[in-house]
Amino acid sequence: MNYEVIILGTSSALPTAERFPSSQILNFREKHFLIDAGEGTQIQMRKYKQSFQRIQKIFISHLHADHFLGLPGLLSSMALLGRENTLEIYGPPGIRTFLETTFSISDAYLTFPVKYIATDHREPQILYEDEHMLISSFPLFHRIACTGFLFREKEKARKFDKKLLNKYFLTPEEIIRIKNGADYQAPDGNFYPNAEITIDPLPPRSYAYCSDTAPFEELAAYVKDAQTIYHESTFTMKHALRAKETRHSTALQAAGLARDAGASQLILGHFSTRYTDLQEFLDEAQPVFANTLLAREGNTYEI
Amino acid sequence: MNYEVIILGTSSALPTAERFPSSQILNFREKHFLIDAGEGTQIQMRKYKQSFQRIQKIFISHLHADHFLGLPGLLSSMALLGRENTLEIYGPPGIRTFLETTFSISDAYLTFPVKYIATDHREPQILYEDEHMLISSFPLFHRIACTGFLFREKEKARKFDKKLLNKYFLTPEEIIRIKNGADYQAPDGNFYPNAEITIDPLPPRSYAYCSDTAPFEELAAYVKDAQTIYHESTFTMKHALRAKETRHSTALQAAGLARDAGASQLILGHFSTRYTDLQEFLDEAQPVFANTLLAREGNTYEI
Repeated sequence: MNYEVIILGTSSALPTAERFPSSQILNFREKHFLIDAGEGTQIQMRKYKQSFQRIQKIFISHLHADHFLGLPGLLSSMALLGRENTLEIYGPPGIRTFLETTFSISDAYLTFPVKYIATDHREPQILYEDEHMLISSFPLFHRIACTGFLFREKEKARKFDKKLLNKYFLTPEEIIRIKNGADYQAPDGNFYPNAEITIDPLPPRSYAYCSDTAPFEELAAYVKDAQTIYHESTFTMKHALRAKETRHSTALQAAGLARDAGASQLILGHFSTRYTDLQEFLDEAQPVFANTLLAREGNTYEI
Repeated sequence: MNYEVIILGTSSALPTAERFPSSQILNFREKHFLIDAGEGTQIQMRKYKQSFQRIQKIFISHLHADHFLGLPGLLSSMALLGRENTLEIYGPPGIRTFLETTFSISDAYLTFPVKYIATDHREPQILYEDEHMLISSFPLFHRIACTGFLFREKEKARKFDKKLLNKYFLTPEEIIRIKNGADYQAPDGNFYPNAEITIDPLPPRSYAYCSDTAPFEELAAYVKDAQTIYHESTFTMKHALRAKETRHSTALQAAGLARDAGASQLILGHFSTRYTDLQEFLDEAQPVFANTLLAREGNTYEI
């Protein structure tokens, strides 16, 4: 089952000719979620052949310009293309004011309902849950109200070992019971404990999005379930003071967080325009956290 | 003296992977004016190495999403780069509401003053005048309030013919008087009428921006001074009905306007995404108006 993130933008506040502002699409078993929507998101989606209409939910971390200005253009295009399905937008309450003002001065109307779900930057919060996943937000430490997001796959049922069917006829109901943990008492008197007739499922996979933030103590605990962490690294350590002043992180700090949280993969993004060669971010992070990757526009990363 | 337009975006409502929404920079003798500012304007400016801070005035034709959504990102970036000079924004009054709402929810402030000058879509209006140029707006015929813009160079003074200096010593004051039309009475008794001692200046050049609009009778009169006309051609004649319904123009209609207005150059833009090969716009326009060009991202057109 697919679980991957497609990067649309990796720049911090100022875009460059190649790097767009923050935006990415999380594909969780063919459900598409948009995380942040900087200016040009719809253009990047066109470029990398991502469907507008498959986006079900949008998550906005905070209201700095490089994280949400792509919303009205994207929503306008969804309407032009005739969308009817409800779009859910999770983020700070100001988003609603912004979008309603923008559409009202444009004399525009959307062809689909928008449901606004306000995030709370003061404590972790469950945003959405279904049988396969649980999505929550957690506080980040930035200049304005900002949250990260955690996308957790749920524990899967054990897999039924089909070898048992070579020996016995089982009803569908019996198979479901076994998948749910039951042992099997065969008609010939043999007894099979559940562990012998089922296979371990793949471990659940989780993805944490941490942008924008300075380092803070509780963060590792908030994201400790995530194998893959996307973490901003606006700066390297040579601009550590600037990072502190603007409440951003360095590559080294992002790597320390991934290590402390026990992650298995770290993706760095949100790079300041002052860096043209991004290799220095890797050089700084990898001694602390080896499996560090650089986010790049158009790249897909398996969770 | 430079007078040229640099195209940043040529798409209509929906962008494509290659075509950005409307935006262009008019360079009039090294004064830079931004005309419309669709989403991604600042990214295109970075790509084509156009300075943010040299923009003195911005002109917004109307408040459809593809013509103004690039404003807040561009202004934010100007502020991040420390701009202090006043920025003037000419356009419908809703722009001020939009920008003030956007900056207020972002908790952002600009480092420079913004002066809003409201346009009037009901009649032609002079927006700005100095010794070299006159900028005015004029009504267009679209679904919402929309104006075009006319950038007229002023008649230049006649040039002093330096050959006269081979015969006589003239004071700077005498030279200025001749440039302004005076004849010259030489100390040796010879008399030189002004036409003999001056050279015709280059004719003044003008540029008209017409987007978005359906054809209407008065338009040719509004732009009759312009040698170069930029005119939307969202459609070709095979979608003439759709053009009429949405109050847009076809390539043929744009060519007719350029011919009726007596222009010498026509630039077509604002193409619908349904056309991948833009050659059909040229094929349709050129039999009516031969000197028709296609707007293309990154191209510069001499006025």
